[in-house]
Amino acid sequence: MPTTTKSYAAQSATTPLEPWNLERRDCKPHDVQIEILYCGVCHSDLHFARNEWGMTIFPVVPGHEIVGKVTAVGDHVKGFKVGDLAGIGCLVDSCRECDNCKEGLEQYCSNGAVFSYNGQERDGSGITYGGYSKSIVCHEDFVLHISEKLDLAATAPLLCAGITTYSPLRHWKVSKGMKVGILGLGGLGHMGVKFAVAMGAEVTMLSHSPSKEKDAKKLGAHKFVLTSDPEQAKAVTGYFDFILDTVSAEHDYNFYLNMLRTNGKMVLVGVPPMPTPIHSTSLIFGRKSLGGSLIGGIPETQEMLDFCAEHNIVSEVEMIRMDQINEAYERMLKGDVRYRFVIDMASF
Amino acid sequence: MPTTTKSYAAQSATTPLEPWNLERRDCKPHDVQIEILYCGVCHSDLHFARNEWGMTIFPVVPGHEIVGKVTAVGDHVKGFKVGDLAGIGCLVDSCRECDNCKEGLEQYCSNGAVFSYNGQERDGSGITYGGYSKSIVCHEDFVLHISEKLDLAATAPLLCAGITTYSPLRHWKVSKGMKVGILGLGGLGHMGVKFAVAMGAEVTMLSHSPSKEKDAKKLGAHKFVLTSDPEQAKAVTGYFDFILDTVSAEHDYNFYLNMLRTNGKMVLVGVPPMPTPIHSTSLIFGRKSLGGSLIGGIPETQEMLDFCAEHNIVSEVEMIRMDQINEAYERMLKGDVRYRFVIDMASF
Repeated sequence: MPTTTKSYAAQSATTPLEPWNLERRDCKPHDVQIEILYCGVCHSDLHFARNEWGMTIFPVVPGHEIVGKVTAVGDHVKGFKVGDLAGIGCLVDSCRECDNCKEGLEQYCSNGAVFSYNGQERDGSGITYGGYSKSIVCHEDFVLHISEKLDLAATAPLLCAGITTYSPLRHWKVSKGMKVGILGLGGLGHMGVKFAVAMGAEVTMLSHSPSKEKDAKKLGAHKFVLTSDPEQAKAVTGYFDFILDTVSAEHDYNFYLNMLRTNGKMVLVGVPPMPTPIHSTSLIFGRKSLGGSLIGGIPETQEMLDFCAEHNIVSEVEMIRMDQINEAYERMLKGDVRYRFVIDMASF
Repeated sequence: MPTTTKSYAAQSATTPLEPWNLERRDCKPHDVQIEILYCGVCHSDLHFARNEWGMTIFPVVPGHEIVGKVTAVGDHVKGFKVGDLAGIGCLVDSCRECDNCKEGLEQYCSNGAVFSYNGQERDGSGITYGGYSKSIVCHEDFVLHISEKLDLAATAPLLCAGITTYSPLRHWKVSKGMKVGILGLGGLGHMGVKFAVAMGAEVTMLSHSPSKEKDAKKLGAHKFVLTSDPEQAKAVTGYFDFILDTVSAEHDYNFYLNMLRTNGKMVLVGVPPMPTPIHSTSLIFGRKSLGGSLIGGIPETQEMLDFCAEHNIVSEVEMIRMDQINEAYERMLKGDVRYRFVIDMASF
């Protein structure tokens, strides 16, 4: 017997998000049912609500930075019990059989990972609905453990913004003594700074907004380079071992590749609206690489959450009520958020 | 007392190469003097002769695929004696003090490597002149040992085309069982095939010319994909661990990135005339990387030559006389060379 659950949904690309009742399935043997307490607001949510990537199935219930309490578990669930804190990120299922799934890289599932909203359930039972909702049901393999030590609301954004920045820093082995640039100080960038600092790197915030310097330093960045100042930019020519590029607006990759030293790597986690022209010489001179990275797999997401508990890392958040979501979207578009909106589901 | 040496030089961007006498210095204590027996013809030679990169200092004597016999050595030279076979590639000097030089990556010298022609000598003594010449003098640190086992003329192109393809295959650890695509079958690509095969990879030639299939197979390629055939291209979606992109003409990187599997890497060694637009999603989905690589350092160039001696690898060459160089440039522009012209200096 499915349970009717209150949610907020966009019914079309041009209408605001509004209350909507959706049906959540009952727990199957391996399912965990979670009462959602907080849900972070990711820029992708807005892209999907407004169908800016042209693939939205309406109605859409966004939200993939989900934390809450376990309220029921299926008969065969071993990892969770009622009352546990739990989280769900961008993924709720995958084939579990391909090479990528076997390596814990479910985000790259060769048969198509199932995303937390706007995804197709693998059993054909329909579309997935996300975290702008009072509850959710998910196979335990895709549910994460959340430490009681961390502020729960500020933990929600770790499930997307956190893992998206943690994963490339880990994969490309950022470590003590490395010179790391974090490009862009937003929802992703501010987590990038915290993680790179915790990993022991010398961290420089690269931003074209002078206003970001104070915050960057507060977040732990050791240096700040105002990229709109040619002198400051020139001073870091050939300087960085690694640059994490979190910017989704149009920008010139070649300009930042020039800041890498020999064998340096720049990794993209943002999706600019248009392709960016690359000079092959930006890579050839200095044997540099430009990479990309998509969120992270389930084992690494748990590792990241454990790392956060150990290093006391959470996101910087501004709490909103569920009925403020449309206003929050408008503010997000203006960059008016430091650094992540989180919906308090108790407000709903 | 400098020695007058016969050479072929371009006196301007619009005039053909013609005989010209240049002065080579006498051996300094660490110098090696080489009688040039063969010199390969690289496409860069043409770019410089015609000032297509806007940095040519005329007169220019091109040629950086140089092999010959040692005819004199300075008092302190330890590694070479008169009569030895010897080679010089793209580099004749570097600062030797920066981190890159200390790591044997002289091609990325932070203070500017000195290239074999059109380079500025570090002692201020003038411009370097390349291998379209009867002799050359070079510090022994930048002179390579050539095995007597290999055909000498066919060895010349190893000094640029060889090391340019060997170095990235080694750096990105191409090895047994890996699926490697070589994009473009020209002077670089044909060496890429031979090396990748010798390293134990499963090698696929990626080409838009059906006429290249036969040659690719003869060179050792295990598979051939006609990239202009959508069916064949689709069949290798997500297939390769590594693609070596040797193409200098305009082409769509995204199309080939799509052929990489998760964590796959594509490395550029060609320089297309215009920047190439990259979709960040081409890299983000599958955590792929696009890298670049420039020739190779001196230790690795020697390693490559030793590898060639061990595996009996040389370039496929067509011999020309020195006075055929202008005609050879025209044929090179039409892609009418399989796969490298080599000048027989005895013809001069």
